[in-house]
Amino acid sequence: MSEEKKIPYKIYLEESEMPKEWYNVRADMKNKPAPLLNPGTLKPMTFEELRGVFCDELAKQELDDTTPYIEIPQEIRDFYKMYRPSPLVRAYCLEKALDTPAKIYYKFEGNNTSGSHKLNSAIAQAYYAKKQGLKGVTTETGAGQWGTALSMACAYLGLDCEVYMVKCSYEQKPFRREVMRTYGANVTPSPSDKTQVGRRIREEFPGTSGSLGCAISEAVEAAASKDGYRYVLGSVLSQVLLHQSVIGLEAKAALDKYNIKPDMIIGCAGGGSNLGGLISPFAGEMLRGEADYRIIAVEPASCPSLTRGRYAYDFCDTGMVCPLAKMYTLGSSFIPSANHAGGLRYHGMSSVVSQLYEDKMIEAVSVEQTAVFAAAEQFARVEGILPAPESSHAIRVAIDEAMKCKETGEEKTIVFGLTGTGYFDMVAYEKYNNGEMSDYVPTDAELEKGFAGLPKV
Amino acid sequence: MSEEKKIPYKIYLEESEMPKEWYNVRADMKNKPAPLLNPGTLKPMTFEELRGVFCDELAKQELDDTTPYIEIPQEIRDFYKMYRPSPLVRAYCLEKALDTPAKIYYKFEGNNTSGSHKLNSAIAQAYYAKKQGLKGVTTETGAGQWGTALSMACAYLGLDCEVYMVKCSYEQKPFRREVMRTYGANVTPSPSDKTQVGRRIREEFPGTSGSLGCAISEAVEAAASKDGYRYVLGSVLSQVLLHQSVIGLEAKAALDKYNIKPDMIIGCAGGGSNLGGLISPFAGEMLRGEADYRIIAVEPASCPSLTRGRYAYDFCDTGMVCPLAKMYTLGSSFIPSANHAGGLRYHGMSSVVSQLYEDKMIEAVSVEQTAVFAAAEQFARVEGILPAPESSHAIRVAIDEAMKCKETGEEKTIVFGLTGTGYFDMVAYEKYNNGEMSDYVPTDAELEKGFAGLPKV
Repeated sequence: MSEEKKIPYKIYLEESEMPKEWYNVRADMKNKPAPLLNPGTLKPMTFEELRGVFCDELAKQELDDTTPYIEIPQEIRDFYKMYRPSPLVRAYCLEKALDTPAKIYYKFEGNNTSGSHKLNSAIAQAYYAKKQGLKGVTTETGAGQWGTALSMACAYLGLDCEVYMVKCSYEQKPFRREVMRTYGANVTPSPSDKTQVGRRIREEFPGTSGSLGCAISEAVEAAASKDGYRYVLGSVLSQVLLHQSVIGLEAKAALDKYNIKPDMIIGCAGGGSNLGGLISPFAGEMLRGEADYRIIAVEPASCPSLTRGRYAYDFCDTGMVCPLAKMYTLGSSFIPSANHAGGLRYHGMSSVVSQLYEDKMIEAVSVEQTAVFAAAEQFARVEGILPAPESSHAIRVAIDEAMKCKETGEEKTIVFGLTGTGYFDMVAYEKYNNGEMSDYVPTDAELEKGFAGLPKV
Repeated sequence: MSEEKKIPYKIYLEESEMPKEWYNVRADMKNKPAPLLNPGTLKPMTFEELRGVFCDELAKQELDDTTPYIEIPQEIRDFYKMYRPSPLVRAYCLEKALDTPAKIYYKFEGNNTSGSHKLNSAIAQAYYAKKQGLKGVTTETGAGQWGTALSMACAYLGLDCEVYMVKCSYEQKPFRREVMRTYGANVTPSPSDKTQVGRRIREEFPGTSGSLGCAISEAVEAAASKDGYRYVLGSVLSQVLLHQSVIGLEAKAALDKYNIKPDMIIGCAGGGSNLGGLISPFAGEMLRGEADYRIIAVEPASCPSLTRGRYAYDFCDTGMVCPLAKMYTLGSSFIPSANHAGGLRYHGMSSVVSQLYEDKMIEAVSVEQTAVFAAAEQFARVEGILPAPESSHAIRVAIDEAMKCKETGEEKTIVFGLTGTGYFDMVAYEKYNNGEMSDYVPTDAELEKGFAGLPKV
């Protein structure tokens, strides 16, 4: 400890130290993520094709795998200042409770009303849509953070916002809907009867609790059927990881300020937006041969795309209306068990994260639900923050790694992403508090069914 | 603007700049708040009498009206560092939306899981209880912030925590209960059948939605009937205002750092803990003749203790088991309309705030509920924070004052307290979103009934 500067509980950058550019990790990847394919022609999506779905600037960002730094427009930087820089917290209290020699830090992205990191990309996507003169955007939301974030960004800019919310979340989280409505959004449980694809899925899977993949299909159809609307997506896409790089850039700047060198970086992974954003600048250093880190992606055992999925081209959505992406996937027809709380329910993984995993830059581990909530409770009681179930996947593995340090006596430095708060997850916490939470792990046979639906590319 | 330093969106103090002492405004008051009276003898409560209810150090603080600064123990300062310093935010976006020349700042106390400023006193009270070797504490909670805060503090220190929660809040906010349970607390809706006083009130007022005064009586009885327990209270008491002075001290340090001189300071007022804490150092300057400010207390029109109450000795609780306090009060039998959302439902006002109001150091204004939610929505959409209904009372008046500046062209500097977030108030927001919210103002005859119950002292 003696050679270190005294490290505060929370490292806040000055506003003047906030990133002025996003970092595009694809520029430093030798093996680029595979391109999106047109589902009709199976050829790489062109800019002209993409701009029918996304607004122009975002289509450009989606295709750009060579420019390492992309300027953050001033208006977005001003919006960021409402809730950023987010603190990098030294988990002194957790370290003490665990009695570990490990040094634990977390980058806390939950200090905003959307309750998560999703706002970082929501404002960027809404900004470009507004700049292009669009009327509004449509989207899906799973656990609700993305929909809330987008509602906030649209309210700020004066854009219409239509949200298709995965049905089981809509029912588990009625108050999420009201937050979005307070921000002026229209919220529809998905699958709905408002779209063709929604009606088709309801017929095919009566009583389905929905999935992100299905809600995406509905939102894409809704955007396509209206003038002046585009579809926006909260994860998976390379443009989203670009915007989320602000997490990693701030985290790295804060670590550098105190001369802290992490040994491992841990993030939860659903579609990959938080993980990809957090690790981007660190992975960049690894790709350029400047540094080495252990990077660990944590996913739920109930939806294990990295640890048990296939690396293949797949549909991004259940309705198969979106471009194909090469990713670690469980198949677009895979619908996670309804018993699984919160987000991280997506069948596939960001192409960027998938390629980094394929290239062994990233490790992956899956954890079960009750162990995740046990970590959440432990963390909440000593660190004072009630974490989102999604974030708690990273907490679980951070605690496990810190306990390994206790055994070996190693003073490793662990950084994890605390993506959000759990204030809208109290139905799940109630189940855990009442001892009624159960685990679910899909059988190999169940996974095979999902794989059978993979397109032949 | 030119002579000012460029002011960031959020002013964060360094941890080293955080207050090391609380400020006790009573020391600078010429007219001291009237002492608590023993309900039996009607004589001022002695230390010996008070220590039967409160733990020793807190009884001492309650009686101390001469020591201006009291050291914050290191353990409490360490806990504060988990969520403090809280930001002083320049409301650039609100100013722009209002097109006002006024400069608006708010001290945001909602960035912690309890969702409000209540944690500042909860950790202090729990700490002194632990230090005295007690097993646990009992308390009441209204809107739920105080109960959550105390649960968090008790979980951190390993103390038992029993919470009596006002019944209408218990029903409106089921998820609050789960947060408290996640932190290990026992939560009982009040009035309950667990205490004599609860049973008596249920018989007398069948179907009552409860009140803070009633929940206090139950918590006091519960503490008195067990070994190793004391009662703790989240507002009203002078000790609570002492702990909450950390809000005002930080706010003043942040303002001083940028050479900002506020013209007015606005806070919502239920029992007075936030308002008293926020204004303490500023009122101190006024009392010492060093500065002048407009200080505005904002209360709900449905529970108007300052604007329509009497300045008199009254019971602090409905069950009349607590000491008498001299305060602006509606009478301990006054129970606010169940239609009123959130907190600020207490019949009386802190003795310190009451005396400052009596001495014309403070103004008071009451506002109606729908106007408060309109301000909350407007604020949320431009400032990105979904405010608690309680805090939104202050937002309403801050906006009104900023609009007056727009008329007159005055560049006044407005500071208000944003005490917390509204994530657990979505039932109320839903009512507002659906246009189903109504206002309620008690008639003079209804108030007279409350006054008729005032003790003859």
